[in-house]
Amino acid sequence: MQSHIDAFFEYLRFPSVSTDSKHKRDVESCADWLVARFKRMGLDAQKHATPGHPIVVAKSKPNRDLPTVLIYGHYDVQPVDPVNEWKTPPFEPTLIEGRVFCRGATDNKGQNFAHILGVEALLSNGGLPVNVIFLLEGEEEIGSPNLPSFLKANQSSLRAEICAVSDTGMIGRGIPTMTYGLRGIGCLEFKVHGPSLDLHSGVYGGAVANPAQVIARLVGSLHDSKGRIQIPGFYNKVLPLEKWEREMWAKLPDGDASTLKETGSTGTWGEEGYSSLERRWGRPTAEVNGIGGGYQGEGSKTVIPREAMAKLSFRLVPNQNAEEIITAAAKFLEDQIGNSCRIQVTPGHDGPAYVMDPHSNYGKAAQRALQKTFQAEPYLIREGGSIPIIHSIKKILGIDTLMLGLALPDCQIHAPNENFTIENFEAGIQLNQNLLKELAGLAK
Amino acid sequence: MQSHIDAFFEYLRFPSVSTDSKHKRDVESCADWLVARFKRMGLDAQKHATPGHPIVVAKSKPNRDLPTVLIYGHYDVQPVDPVNEWKTPPFEPTLIEGRVFCRGATDNKGQNFAHILGVEALLSNGGLPVNVIFLLEGEEEIGSPNLPSFLKANQSSLRAEICAVSDTGMIGRGIPTMTYGLRGIGCLEFKVHGPSLDLHSGVYGGAVANPAQVIARLVGSLHDSKGRIQIPGFYNKVLPLEKWEREMWAKLPDGDASTLKETGSTGTWGEEGYSSLERRWGRPTAEVNGIGGGYQGEGSKTVIPREAMAKLSFRLVPNQNAEEIITAAAKFLEDQIGNSCRIQVTPGHDGPAYVMDPHSNYGKAAQRALQKTFQAEPYLIREGGSIPIIHSIKKILGIDTLMLGLALPDCQIHAPNENFTIENFEAGIQLNQNLLKELAGLAK
Repeated sequence: MQSHIDAFFEYLRFPSVSTDSKHKRDVESCADWLVARFKRMGLDAQKHATPGHPIVVAKSKPNRDLPTVLIYGHYDVQPVDPVNEWKTPPFEPTLIEGRVFCRGATDNKGQNFAHILGVEALLSNGGLPVNVIFLLEGEEEIGSPNLPSFLKANQSSLRAEICAVSDTGMIGRGIPTMTYGLRGIGCLEFKVHGPSLDLHSGVYGGAVANPAQVIARLVGSLHDSKGRIQIPGFYNKVLPLEKWEREMWAKLPDGDASTLKETGSTGTWGEEGYSSLERRWGRPTAEVNGIGGGYQGEGSKTVIPREAMAKLSFRLVPNQNAEEIITAAAKFLEDQIGNSCRIQVTPGHDGPAYVMDPHSNYGKAAQRALQKTFQAEPYLIREGGSIPIIHSIKKILGIDTLMLGLALPDCQIHAPNENFTIENFEAGIQLNQNLLKELAGLAK
Repeated sequence: MQSHIDAFFEYLRFPSVSTDSKHKRDVESCADWLVARFKRMGLDAQKHATPGHPIVVAKSKPNRDLPTVLIYGHYDVQPVDPVNEWKTPPFEPTLIEGRVFCRGATDNKGQNFAHILGVEALLSNGGLPVNVIFLLEGEEEIGSPNLPSFLKANQSSLRAEICAVSDTGMIGRGIPTMTYGLRGIGCLEFKVHGPSLDLHSGVYGGAVANPAQVIARLVGSLHDSKGRIQIPGFYNKVLPLEKWEREMWAKLPDGDASTLKETGSTGTWGEEGYSSLERRWGRPTAEVNGIGGGYQGEGSKTVIPREAMAKLSFRLVPNQNAEEIITAAAKFLEDQIGNSCRIQVTPGHDGPAYVMDPHSNYGKAAQRALQKTFQAEPYLIREGGSIPIIHSIKKILGIDTLMLGLALPDCQIHAPNENFTIENFEAGIQLNQNLLKELAGLAK
C-alpha cells in the first residue's frame, strides 16, 4: 500500500490547473507522467495533442473474445484560490487522520488513480478479465472543449461495450452509491422593452408599463403556489418517478436536512408532493439565474427603466425535449406581454437528461461490484446537474456509463482543503477489480 | 422689448451650473448680477451666503397695508452634457424663429426674469399693488440642500400671504396652465436572502427557494390584473378625484397620445377606470425602480443567487400618509415570504402630496391673471412628481404656492437645445403684472 500512496502523491504534486495558462507545462508533465505509468504497466499508452491540453489514452493488449470497458477520468484540477484558506500547501499531499489533503485528491486524480491501480493489480495477478481503455483528459474543469471532437475522430479505436467513471458522489461514508441519471438543461434569456428612455417615475408612474415590474410579473408567473410550473405542456412528456426510486430515495439519510445544511437555506421549498431529493434529482424545474432592471446602486433613483432582463434555465428529466420546453416557455412569456411593452426571447444552450437502466445487466454488475467492495447494499441515485461528458459518450460512442462515485460529501472539491480518504482510495482499487470481473461475465 | 431681451441674454450668459464646482465663480457672479439688477429697480436686494451657492432676496419697499407676494425662482442651471448635441453654443443665447436657445432659457432664468421685468414695469408705471419679495436660489438643480434652513432662519422676514412660482409646464402653446397639486412619495428597498452562498442550480434547483424568483413573485404581487395595488389599506385614505377635475382633464388635448409620444411606450397601462392623465396626476402608484439578483452578464451562469433586491417607490396623492403606506407595504411583502427565505425591508425617504384649492380666492385670482394674459380659459392640472420646494414653503412659511408655469412641452429642459419662446417671455412679463394686480384686490 505504501508504494500506492507514494505513486498517488507523485501524481498529486503536478499543479495541473487547466484554466491557468501559466500551468500549461505542468498539465503536460502530468500527462507525460501518466503515459510513463501506463507503459510501465504494459499498456499501450499515448498522449494525444489537442488545441488545448493533451488527452491520454492507454489500452490493454486487446483480446477479441473479451468485452471492452472504457474508463474515463481527468487529470486536470481546479485552481486553488483562495489559497490562504488552505491548511496545508495545496500541491503538497499531506496525510492527516486518514485523509490526503491536496488539490485534485478526490476530483479526480484519487478516483481515476484507484482505477489505474486496480487494473495494475489485476495485470500482476493473472491478467485482465476484460479489455480496458483508459481515457484521461486534461480539460474537464474547463468544460472539455476538445473531448467531443476527439471522441468523434477516434470512434472506432475507442469502441467499448460500457464506460465506467468515478467522478460523482457517495451518499455518505461507507455507503456505496451508483448514479444512474442526470438532469438535462434548457436555457433562455429574455428582455422586456418599455419606454424608449428611462423615465421619471413621478411624471409617468402609473400610466406606462414598467419593464422591471413586467419582468417580475412574468418570472413570478412561472410557478403556482404549489411550486408547479405553469408553462402549458411543461410536464407532458415527463417520465414519472418509479415506485422503487421513490422508495429507495426515501431511505436515504436526511434528504431535507442535508439539503438545508448544504445550502444554508432556512426552509425547504419546491413542488408539492415531492421530497427534497426527488425535487433535486427526479423533477424538472424552472429557475431564474439572473434578473435585473433599473437602478440597483446605493440610495434611490426614481426611474422607470426602459428595459429589464431575466435569465432562465430549466432542469429537465428523462423524455423531456429541451427545444420543445424552450419554445413553450417563450410562448408562455410572450402570451402574457400585452401591447404596453415588447418582449424579446433568446434561446440559450440545452442538453437532454441522461438516464441508464440500473436494472440492466451492466447496472446489476456494477451494483454487485459495489456490494462486494463496501459490504453494503448500494444506493441508486440520480444527480440534479448535467455532466456533458456522459452525454458525449452516449451520443458519440453510443454506450452507457456506470457512474460509481467515490467523492464524500465533505471532500471539499473545488474548495480549499480538498481531501480524499485512504479508505475510499483503497476501496476504489478494489472496486475497479470487482467491477471488471463482474463485467467480464457479461456476454460481449 | 429689445432692452428686455438684451438683459435676458446677459442673465443667460452666466454658466451658472450649480453641480459643477468649476462653475462656482459663475454661479456667484450670476447672483451678483441679480442683486445689481434688483437694486437698479429700487428693491432692497441682498446676496445671502450658504454652505453652497448664495440665495438672493430682493424686497420692494414695504407697505403695511398691502398683501405680500413671495416670488420664488432659481438662477442655477443644469449641466450642458452632451455638449455636442447642441446646435448653438449652450451659453450663447441665440434667437431662432422666435425661440431663445440657451441653457437655462426656460428652466428657470426665462421664467423668473419675466417676473422681474413684470415688477419693473409696474414700478415704473405707478408702483406695485402688493409688496413683493423675490427669493432666487442657486441650488435648485442639486436639490435645494440649503433652502429649508434658510427659510427657517428667515421666517419672519420672508412672511407673505402667498407664493408664486413659474417653474412648471403648460399643456401646450397658448394654453394657460395652473398646477394646483403634486404627488407625494414614499420609498423602500427590500432584500430577499436565501441560501448562505450562491448555489449550483443543477444540484439544488427545485428544492430551495430562489431569492431572484421570490423577489419577482413579491414585486409581481403588488398589482392585480386591473393595475390596482394589492397592499391592504393602500387606497383607504385616498381622496377620490372630483368630478370637475376629471371633466377638465378629459378636455385636455390627447392625454393618452401625448403620454405615448413622450415616453415611446407602445401602449398605455395602468389602473383600470382612469385615463392616462388621471393615472399620472391623481392616482397613487407602486413602482419598482430597480430589481436585481443573480447573474446579469453575458451568456449564462446556472446559479441560484444567495440574495436579490428591489427598490420600490409609491407616488402618493392627497390625504395618504407616506409612513403608513411604507409600513403597510413592508407588512404586505413580509407576510408573503414564508419560511424558506428571509426578507429585510429598509424604508427610504418620503414626502406628502401637495394640493391647494384652485377655487380659493388666491387660486381664482391666479386664473383671472392667466385668462387675461393668454385670452383663453386656463386649465387646472396637477403634476405627477414632487417639488420639494413647494412643500418646504408650505411647511416652513405656512403659505400656498400658485404654480403658473411657462414651460412648453418642447422646451427641452435638462436636455440639449433648451429654449424659451419670446411669446412666453412676453406673456410672462404680462402675467406677473396681471397676477400682482389680481392679488392686490384680495383682503390681506
